[in-house]
Amino acid sequence: VQAEIIAVGSELLTPSRVDTNSLYLTEQLNNLGVELITKGVIGDDRDRLAGAVRHALNRAEILILTGGLGPTEDDVTRDAVAVALDRKQAFHAEVKEAIAERFRRFGRKMADINLRQAFIIEGADILWNDHGTAPGQWIEDAGRYLMLLPGPPHEMKGLWERHCFPRLSRVVPRQVIRTLVFRVAGMGESDLDQLIAPVYKKYTNPVTTVLAAPGDVQVHLRAQCAQDQEAIALLDEVGRQIDLLLGDRIYSRNGDSMEVTMGNLLRQAGATIAVAESCTGGLLSERLTSVPGSSEYFLGGFVTYASALKADVLGVPVEVLATYGAVSKETAEAMAAGVRMRTGATFGLSVTGVAGPGTGGEQVPVGTIYIGLSDSIGTRSVHRQFAGDRTRIRQFATQYALDLLRLQLSS
Amino acid sequence: VQAEIIAVGSELLTPSRVDTNSLYLTEQLNNLGVELITKGVIGDDRDRLAGAVRHALNRAEILILTGGLGPTEDDVTRDAVAVALDRKQAFHAEVKEAIAERFRRFGRKMADINLRQAFIIEGADILWNDHGTAPGQWIEDAGRYLMLLPGPPHEMKGLWERHCFPRLSRVVPRQVIRTLVFRVAGMGESDLDQLIAPVYKKYTNPVTTVLAAPGDVQVHLRAQCAQDQEAIALLDEVGRQIDLLLGDRIYSRNGDSMEVTMGNLLRQAGATIAVAESCTGGLLSERLTSVPGSSEYFLGGFVTYASALKADVLGVPVEVLATYGAVSKETAEAMAAGVRMRTGATFGLSVTGVAGPGTGGEQVPVGTIYIGLSDSIGTRSVHRQFAGDRTRIRQFATQYALDLLRLQLSS
Repeated sequence: VQAEIIAVGSELLTPSRVDTNSLYLTEQLNNLGVELITKGVIGDDRDRLAGAVRHALNRAEILILTGGLGPTEDDVTRDAVAVALDRKQAFHAEVKEAIAERFRRFGRKMADINLRQAFIIEGADILWNDHGTAPGQWIEDAGRYLMLLPGPPHEMKGLWERHCFPRLSRVVPRQVIRTLVFRVAGMGESDLDQLIAPVYKKYTNPVTTVLAAPGDVQVHLRAQCAQDQEAIALLDEVGRQIDLLLGDRIYSRNGDSMEVTMGNLLRQAGATIAVAESCTGGLLSERLTSVPGSSEYFLGGFVTYASALKADVLGVPVEVLATYGAVSKETAEAMAAGVRMRTGATFGLSVTGVAGPGTGGEQVPVGTIYIGLSDSIGTRSVHRQFAGDRTRIRQFATQYALDLLRLQLSS
Repeated sequence: VQAEIIAVGSELLTPSRVDTNSLYLTEQLNNLGVELITKGVIGDDRDRLAGAVRHALNRAEILILTGGLGPTEDDVTRDAVAVALDRKQAFHAEVKEAIAERFRRFGRKMADINLRQAFIIEGADILWNDHGTAPGQWIEDAGRYLMLLPGPPHEMKGLWERHCFPRLSRVVPRQVIRTLVFRVAGMGESDLDQLIAPVYKKYTNPVTTVLAAPGDVQVHLRAQCAQDQEAIALLDEVGRQIDLLLGDRIYSRNGDSMEVTMGNLLRQAGATIAVAESCTGGLLSERLTSVPGSSEYFLGGFVTYASALKADVLGVPVEVLATYGAVSKETAEAMAAGVRMRTGATFGLSVTGVAGPGTGGEQVPVGTIYIGLSDSIGTRSVHRQFAGDRTRIRQFATQYALDLLRLQLSS
């Protein structure tokens, strides 16, 4: 079963506003096994909205409209749906009475324009609203289901929970949706896709989606079945093959972020970490400490932007800085070893490089990154070259640094 | 002139993802005097997208599609638009060559699936992409303008700025829209609105919008006129009144972020800064160093999560920690003075507190924050209590810390 959501309101077409009702409704629909195929925002224009409603009813069995049920001329949802379905509207005295009663309860008099809210589309069921004046409407039309819900989130949710969800669960064939998420660092989107596409292309269920952020590719498998066991078995069958192909490049098999994964590994190992960074400017510390409870394993971080601090605080030898430069394999390793010594942490992790846009006088190109990792066995480093702007390079660099430690911890 | 935006991608139809590209594009379109009448999200389904493109072209002169230009089978935007316009696609060897060259530059081999990205719709102009492999496409069709842009925000913005905005400004009738942005830290949204609403409610042009983020309220005035001079005069008239009411609580009068404002003030003063933080975990450093060129004034940062590091690295006296605790006025001041001494910076700025959700054993409630500021004259501190989750408290704390230094620098 497929659904579409339309949010109505010109204010949702400004640069600063986002329709959040649809996020809640998507989750609710998915819980019913209903797939959202399209969502949109339409301004307060009756004819345009009527056109969109007609278009939606050609492709979806369920259409949810939010907003546009208020008392003013701008509120066009009732009229637009009536036009689209070619139905009349009728005035309902009991709705008017309920609205008037609500005003009385708050010691106010109902304004005449609120009478518009007492018009109900022919054949629609009234969804009584405890949290506002606008009643919702439930319409069945040629085997399709339309819901008109108010825009304020608490009113929308109230009507959804009390009326729409129970009604839909009676009419929608019961379907279970289960998801499996792999997250991979250290691999580009297209390389990864080329590797796993031969596997997931064999299946239309689960549906596989590949998503990319800097240094972070997510593979989402989504199985939809009548039975829970069936969905789990399908995910297991496809997931196992993908797992074999990607192996330890997978850092998370449950959707956890890199920093959460890292925290779990450190906690399991009873290990602690301290970091030293330059071009990433605190982002490495910030990511590690964004996890609640990170104080159990995170001892501290040093953002040694000035070269003098690298020598003074981390004990990077002045000769190393002079000979190899602040952005070098040697400096990265000395930073990692230095921060480990300084703090007594199990692991010292370091990042030095050039995030750009300027090179800061370094004789190395923008995007050059050295990552150092030090433990009781020794110290090593890797070199990477990233592309993009300052923000992207900083994200890439911290992701690869965390992944280096993850590989060490899980080996 | 009216526009529609369609974001393509099944991942944007999940409960946790929002299409943010359309917010940027809406602002840009508004700057051209173009009205957004509808926006929507369509999953990775060629025929459904083709239907939506046809529907959109019946109501809007400008249609912008973002996403779905990647190399995989899921990426259906090219095919869908070709179907909707009934045009063929042709392979362009020079596009293939540019993609292959991009791979070579990063020391990688182009995968075969990337060849799909070298197909261009008949009659379309190629929009060369400096930030990724997917080229954009610009199509004119019966007096309407279609733009196919990649989904990653930095790629989309790059193509928009370089190609789409200049082309559209040549074809769209000119309306001048001018904006004035005030940014305020240290004041809640409703308090601020109550203060300035009596002023801005008198005007329908400019339109005033108040936006709130943790510790950061923005007031946007937007004037739309036929003449530039007229818009400037209107903004000046209303802006002057708001400025009088808010005074030095305004940290930016041009939309600059707090960290950019701070960088400019430090550079003007020829001053340097070093920071010491605990509960904000590197976010204070990260924000200051997110500004290109920040190495001119930012010397370094210390994330002293473990108490021992506060003593060892920053020289916070062990008696202070034992007597007053790590989250205290005394510790905040010792951290600020210590980081200043340690680095030789003009200013030492510190944050200590409890970001939650647990209290970490501290005898103070979640959301308690102490901020210390030290310079050659002396050291002082402020205490704040914030509400919200870990992320929010960390944002509030860094914002108030930066604002404290800003007030000192601008006094």
